[in-house]
Amino acid sequence: MLYFVEIDVKIPAEIDPSRLEDMKAREKIASSEYQRSGEWLHLWRIAGKFGNISIFDVSDHDRLHEILWSLPLFPFMTIRVLPLARHPAAIDRPPA
Amino acid sequence: MLYFVEIDVKIPAEIDPSRLEDMKAREKIASSEYQRSGEWLHLWRIAGKFGNISIFDVSDHDRLHEILWSLPLFPFMTIRVLPLARHPAAIDRPPA
Amino acid sequence: MLYFVEIDVKIPAEIDPSRLEDMKAREKIASSEYQRSGEWLHLWRIAGKFGNISIFDVSDHDRLHEILWSLPLFPFMTIRVLPLARHPAAIDRPPA
Amino acid sequence: MLYFVEIDVKIPAEIDPSRLEDMKAREKIASSEYQRSGEWLHLWRIAGKFGNISIFDVSDHDRLHEILWSLPLFPFMTIRVLPLARHPAAIDRPPA
Amino acid sequence: MLYFVEIDVKIPAEIDPSRLEDMKAREKIASSEYQRSGEWLHLWRIAGKFGNISIFDVSDHDRLHEILWSLPLFPFMTIRVLPLARHPAAIDRPPA
Amino acid sequence: MLYFVEIDVKIPAEIDPSRLEDMKAREKIASSEYQRSGEWLHLWRIAGKFGNISIFDVSDHDRLHEILWSLPLFPFMTIRVLPLARHPAAIDRPPA
Amino acid sequence: MLYFVEIDVKIPAEIDPSRLEDMKAREKIASSEYQRSGEWLHLWRIAGKFGNISIFDVSDHDRLHEILWSLPLFPFMTIRVLPLARHPAAIDRPPA
Amino acid sequence: MLYFVEIDVKIPAEIDPSRLEDMKAREKIASSEYQRSGEWLHLWRIAGKFGNISIFDVSDHDRLHEILWSLPLFPFMTIRVLPLARHPAAIDRPPA
Amino acid sequence: MLYFVEIDVKIPAEIDPSRLEDMKAREKIASSEYQRSGEWLHLWRIAGKFGNISIFDVSDHDRLHEILWSLPLFPFMTIRVLPLARHPAAIDRPPA
Amino acid sequence: MLYFVEIDVKIPAEIDPSRLEDMKAREKIASSEYQRSGEWLHLWRIAGKFGNISIFDVSDHDRLHEILWSLPLFPFMTIRVLPLARHPAAIDRPPA
Repeated sequence: MLYFVEIDVKIPAEIDPSRLEDMKAREKIASSEYQRSGEWLHLWRIAGKFGNISIFDVSDHDRLHEILWSLPLFPFMTIRVLPLARHPAAIDRPPA
Repeated sequence: MLYFVEIDVKIPAEIDPSRLEDMKAREKIASSEYQRSGEWLHLWRIAGKFGNISIFDVSDHDRLHEILWSLPLFPFMTIRVLPLARHPAAIDRPPA
Repeated sequence: MLYFVEIDVKIPAEIDPSRLEDMKAREKIASSEYQRSGEWLHLWRIAGKFGNISIFDVSDHDRLHEILWSLPLFPFMTIRVLPLARHPAAIDRPPA
Repeated sequence: MLYFVEIDVKIPAEIDPSRLEDMKAREKIASSEYQRSGEWLHLWRIAGKFGNISIFDVSDHDRLHEILWSLPLFPFMTIRVLPLARHPAAIDRPPA
Repeated sequence: MLYFVEIDVKIPAEIDPSRLEDMKAREKIASSEYQRSGEWLHLWRIAGKFGNISIFDVSDHDRLHEILWSLPLFPFMTIRVLPLARHPAAIDRPPA
Repeated sequence: MLYFVEIDVKIPAEIDPSRLEDMKAREKIASSEYQRSGEWLHLWRIAGKFGNISIFDVSDHDRLHEILWSLPLFPFMTIRVLPLARHPAAIDRPPA
Repeated sequence: MLYFVEIDVKIPAEIDPSRLEDMKAREKIASSEYQRSGEWLHLWRIAGKFGNISIFDVSDHDRLHEILWSLPLFPFMTIRVLPLARHPAAIDRPPA
Repeated sequence: MLYFVEIDVKIPAEIDPSRLEDMKAREKIASSEYQRSGEWLHLWRIAGKFGNISIFDVSDHDRLHEILWSLPLFPFMTIRVLPLARHPAAIDRPPA
Repeated sequence: MLYFVEIDVKIPAEIDPSRLEDMKAREKIASSEYQRSGEWLHLWRIAGKFGNISIFDVSDHDRLHEILWSLPLFPFMTIRVLPLARHPAAIDRPPA
Repeated sequence: MLYFVEIDVKIPAEIDPSRLEDMKAREKIASSEYQRSGEWLHLWRIAGKFGNISIFDVSDHDRLHEILWSLPLFPFMTIRVLPLARHPAAIDRPPA
């Protein structure tokens, strides 16, 4: 099933730079794995923001939550989730 | 170039039902054509809303505006546009 | 799967009273059927509002959208949908 | 009486990790006890958030406040409370 | 039990003046009766607004909803309800 | 004159616990004195919040400000003030 | 006592132009009288808006409400009222 | 002096189409004249909106208000005005 | 020219008290000088807030910015600026 | 292509002053270079704010993001980006 996920990241000012770099590196590895599995279907950067627009294709809500909760930068994230249904005007090409 | 577009449609209560049906029909035709051209890359229904999440792949801002302005239901739309850049963690598979 | 749905209804002032009564009656029938099917799991009135808090237990996003879109008062509704996962602190009793 | 409670948790960045783990553990114990007493009737995780949707069934406002105020993570919570009445369209099955 | 209720009234521009006067008159009668019963404990006008701040003292959520839903101007109201508990610093004098 | 005052308290995470306890104790003393003087007419706890709904009966704006500014927890407060007039539908019983 | 009043006027699209002109004319007369009485102390137009920033100097909340409620365009107004106290840094020159 | 002006236009659904076309035509003439005078310095369309971002270079607030108030579509506009000062990092090239 | 300025001050919890007292003292001196020059025309305290409503009468936007930017507490301020034009209903008495 | 960019800067209270001065200095150099290249077309200070209104003329979204992400003060920025199309009423003079 498809989920729209909009993520905005706010890094606390007083964080230790090396800890942040480590979190970013682990974040990149984690997201690559989910992309290769096909679960993280689309990942785009919002121009001008430390944030992204993503489309997830996962089995259910619990799996979506499991993935997002596992992201190293999760504690600094504001996340908006919208369940996506098939649009009546979408042409036969599969939506994703 | 990729644009994130979120559309929310609010139909005025006093609209003539037959005029609305005509607008919806023309809307479906228009969106199909833009999808076939590849400009309207993704079109998903937000579950529970008369609205959609879309990704457009068009030449520039003017073209995006031209398409959206041409939609029959445009006068009843609230539209949010975000320009999308390539995410540094996006794996080599083309984002769309 | 469980979905949290918050519905706020705003009836246009100029609506024909008899048409409104008909819509309300059909709304009640529709919601009863979905409740009996178990898909509309919980339905509570928000005290002081023409609105409700509901929990749906349906197969997927498309089914949720199909149900909400079918409600006679849908055109007058503002709807907020949140996908619900199992809470790690929820005791073994089934959440619903 | 039934109360809708939506809780969003924002953990301060500079908190001592061991203190946080202790608070989370005590939170889990507290919520389990209230669930076993039947006062915390439903507890669901909002997918993608450190937050939950809950339904409480308690004697009155003071008791609701007493429970929420007692939660270890209360200082980091933003809480929305809505009193729930019986919906006129709710079928005879008890709403909870 | 005590409920804080904040009511903002927005009269549609196209309403028939005589119908509005009738609704206002019936509203005044209704509110007087609830005040005499002691259920509508306090009623103050917000200076500069067609709105009020009220404190209700009623048996439960259902009764509160029943009263508010019965008000003739209810369709034009935006209502905010907060359940009130006893404040730990409130001196022994009964709060109302 | 009557003022509606809604207070929301947000305690900074890094505050020294003993300093906070001292502030809370002084806050309780201060509010009791203003209640005994009749200036702090009503004080209710919003269920689920570190906040309150209050009605002040004071001589003028300056006095209201003086009282609120004097509260030990003032630096951690978000305060909303509405001047209250007599409601045309209020029955003869004094509004407070 | 001084009150800050911010007024935003939204004229309904379907209003009869001659009725609107009459309301505007009566509005101007009313505001001039209150200005001459000294109660409407300052009246400035917000550049780019059908709205104004005003300072009222009136006896109490009830009088402020009486004036605002009497304005012909009141039904089309959104009004924000803030009670103003003397600023500790205001120099001896009377604030108005 | 420079003013940032953001305009969002919301056309009422029930407006007579020919009246709207006339207003749009007169709007275009008016804006062209102000552009030729140099007062309407920049006018850009926000892609996806019936709205624009503009920079005005006018003598003072009153002149800005006079221009905006004179626009035929003014009654359907929501306008945001920000006064612009010279930025300390702006290079010597005149800002416009 | 006249500018409406609304200032809300949020002092960080961890600030050194003596540094804050010094900033407040310098703030008072600065504002007194601008008031004596006539540029800071009105300064009122919003009852219940660490904030003020002010009217500035200065030569242009740059001067307004220069003054506000110079205030010692500027880093802790949220500021709203509205340019004020002469109101068509303002009586001949100078608006300030 | 033209982008409207609105930037609001919020400096953390506990930052080391010398580090901040260094960041501001590097910010000024960076923005000057982008202005000389013509990519940062307009840069105006919003009077009363640590923020600016800017117009960028860059090749695409990725380039815009690259520039904004490179700004030393980026971590303290809240940024709003709107893609700008040519306005149908813009006179032949190039929009910028």
